[in-house]
Amino acid sequence: MKEQARHVKVITRDKEYEGILIESYDPNIILLKLDGGYNIGIEKKKVHKIQEISKEKIEEIPELKKSSKKLPGISIISTGGTIASRIDYKTGAVKWLMKPEQILALSPGLLEIAQINEIKSPFIIASENMHPSKWCEIAKIAAELLNKEENKGIIITHGTDTLHYTAAALSFMLKNLNKPVVMTYAQRSSDRGSSDMALNIKCSAFMALSDIAEVMLVGHATIEDDFCYALSGTKVRKMHSSRRDAFRPINTLPIAKIKENGNIEIIKDNFNKRDEKKKVIADAKFEERIALVKYYPGADSKIIDFYRDRGYKGLIIEATGLGHVGTEESNHNWIPSIKKAIDSGMIICFAPQTLYGRLNPNVYAPGRKLLEAGVIFLEDILPETAYVKLGYILAIEKNREKIIKLMQTNIANEFNPRLNEKDFMF
Amino acid sequence: MKEQARHVKVITRDKEYEGILIESYDPNIILLKLDGGYNIGIEKKKVHKIQEISKEKIEEIPELKKSSKKLPGISIISTGGTIASRIDYKTGAVKWLMKPEQILALSPGLLEIAQINEIKSPFIIASENMHPSKWCEIAKIAAELLNKEENKGIIITHGTDTLHYTAAALSFMLKNLNKPVVMTYAQRSSDRGSSDMALNIKCSAFMALSDIAEVMLVGHATIEDDFCYALSGTKVRKMHSSRRDAFRPINTLPIAKIKENGNIEIIKDNFNKRDEKKKVIADAKFEERIALVKYYPGADSKIIDFYRDRGYKGLIIEATGLGHVGTEESNHNWIPSIKKAIDSGMIICFAPQTLYGRLNPNVYAPGRKLLEAGVIFLEDILPETAYVKLGYILAIEKNREKIIKLMQTNIANEFNPRLNEKDFMF
Repeated sequence: MKEQARHVKVITRDKEYEGILIESYDPNIILLKLDGGYNIGIEKKKVHKIQEISKEKIEEIPELKKSSKKLPGISIISTGGTIASRIDYKTGAVKWLMKPEQILALSPGLLEIAQINEIKSPFIIASENMHPSKWCEIAKIAAELLNKEENKGIIITHGTDTLHYTAAALSFMLKNLNKPVVMTYAQRSSDRGSSDMALNIKCSAFMALSDIAEVMLVGHATIEDDFCYALSGTKVRKMHSSRRDAFRPINTLPIAKIKENGNIEIIKDNFNKRDEKKKVIADAKFEERIALVKYYPGADSKIIDFYRDRGYKGLIIEATGLGHVGTEESNHNWIPSIKKAIDSGMIICFAPQTLYGRLNPNVYAPGRKLLEAGVIFLEDILPETAYVKLGYILAIEKNREKIIKLMQTNIANEFNPRLNEKDFMF
Repeated sequence: MKEQARHVKVITRDKEYEGILIESYDPNIILLKLDGGYNIGIEKKKVHKIQEISKEKIEEIPELKKSSKKLPGISIISTGGTIASRIDYKTGAVKWLMKPEQILALSPGLLEIAQINEIKSPFIIASENMHPSKWCEIAKIAAELLNKEENKGIIITHGTDTLHYTAAALSFMLKNLNKPVVMTYAQRSSDRGSSDMALNIKCSAFMALSDIAEVMLVGHATIEDDFCYALSGTKVRKMHSSRRDAFRPINTLPIAKIKENGNIEIIKDNFNKRDEKKKVIADAKFEERIALVKYYPGADSKIIDFYRDRGYKGLIIEATGLGHVGTEESNHNWIPSIKKAIDSGMIICFAPQTLYGRLNPNVYAPGRKLLEAGVIFLEDILPETAYVKLGYILAIEKNREKIIKLMQTNIANEFNPRLNEKDFMF
């Protein structure tokens, strides 16, 4: 399939813009894809002139070639996201690659590192459309691939928006993990000069062949195209909307630093080691009747009653500071609604709204009141990870005491028991 | 008032703990305040021995002394928080200072920098109990003090948990600002060796006398007790639950760096300058029927209907990535509920869940669908600042078109129009 693009200069009274002309849904607006990759709309009546700079053929996606060398094998699960997309020069929007194999073709160097055994693509979606049921689907396919002898590890490509939620889900669901599970992404699609895809894919392949049998997120460590970090699936968060190094470790250090030449420098050495004799099990279950609620000044505690009335089984509350919510009449007092929820059988957990640092309900008196009411304070966990963990635990365990115990147990490194105030990866 | 504290060593089978014995509400538990400042509970039956180390008199709070030198004047508003508290050795919890004047007495050096004209204390609360109505109260007192000739500036002491919300509120409410408004805090109470209070108060006094007529948050720039930053009231967030440098500038640079010797190094020089001829106005209004809602995989869009049914006037949605929520049946599709809310007259705005970076609804097709539906994308604003701004704007303006325009207008530096990808103060 061949495509053509018109590279033009649009001149208005105040400004000039250079970019590729894309089809506009509004006849009064000219849409340009700027060289930086963003789209801009310019009112037609403001345009003095459009100069044609060139007509370019859009690069075709090459055919997938098999490596002739004998290389270790990996498999890929392609789920969508920018990494599985390119710009549609008709609409200016991003469109999906026609076949998941195209990810390979767009990843120069990958086939020099590993033999790709299989590419599974259960669905191709933007990651804001991920849903817990899809996490379960991915977990099952991952387990199937990990239990095949020919695969030394797997790579899962995924959109960035909710990648950290899926990484946490796989961290809890993949039991008895035998090999590396590497999740990766692109912040910019492969047709852009500034795409971060090639380095991320290469570093992911190196990690998939490593001895680190963990669920990891691998991607740019800096805004330069120089090296990647492997980050723990339960302690990572998308912290920037567009930077290539958007994913940051929270309350922990990266597991490893990976260079483009395959050099892996281990930073945190207490990882789960590769053990190919083990069989991984996908414990792919999730209780969907849970929610994440943020506390803020003026927040009405009726939000808790709303979820209780709808039969929800548990809530993660993003509390302020060391684990606080309004507890006096000067504001909305959340304690009565929290107590009612707990009395009705709901599991109410707190996670830090600050993201960095640890909760400590013992410092101030209201914290102790909340503890007495039965609130579970989840230490230094990320709110997003806490949400995923709660849905998983409520699906596998029905006994209240055991649920509370499991929520407080470090299952997939979601807690950092040795968290130091200086472990602050800003 | 004299107090006594028992400094003891508690010996159990596995461990020894040193600290100050505090009254426990559970007779089976011994409570100790460890030297690090945190409380620990030890089961009585596990305790082998309690060794008395010493009985200490708790330092009395000295009386406030007036400075004999002729110094420029400032006034203080004391609202509560750790900075207005000390440990109660009976309960081990933190208790309020008896009089706001004690803040001064506990701030060595402050009276060498400025003459304190007045200390107003409308209430003393933990900041998780702040409420928009209290922001309005503070704004009115601030305006009154700023319009007195004798004050060169003011300092507002406040709890840390929601300090950034109040800072944003004052940034919007104090119109025609003439002098510096400095908000400060302590992460650790004044009786602790590691308290950050003294440096924060001193640097705040220097800023209150400076020519920078902005609402600023002044506090530790690092975990060392070496210097402070002055941070813009609308672009700051508590990013750590316990560190002294918990407050971080988001999508901007600090306004200035302040050393203990009073040296002020300006970092961002486009600030509003002192102009004592101006009269500040407290536009202290807030529409409370608004909420902050976070989107995540599996989040049910019925939460929007819940607020619409309750007559809410607007919502800030913490969207993923460049400004996304579920828009396909693979997940919960939020577009129908958002459209219904907008059709009913609600104002629906998106703010970045990533915190860092800017929204851009033009990159992907669903973003454009949301734009068409009438969602207002608030660029690089902090979700907390967006919440405060929406409540303020809805209280001062009733015309829908004007509300939308105001939400998109940079009123108090809540947007950084020159935001560079490299402005990433991690």
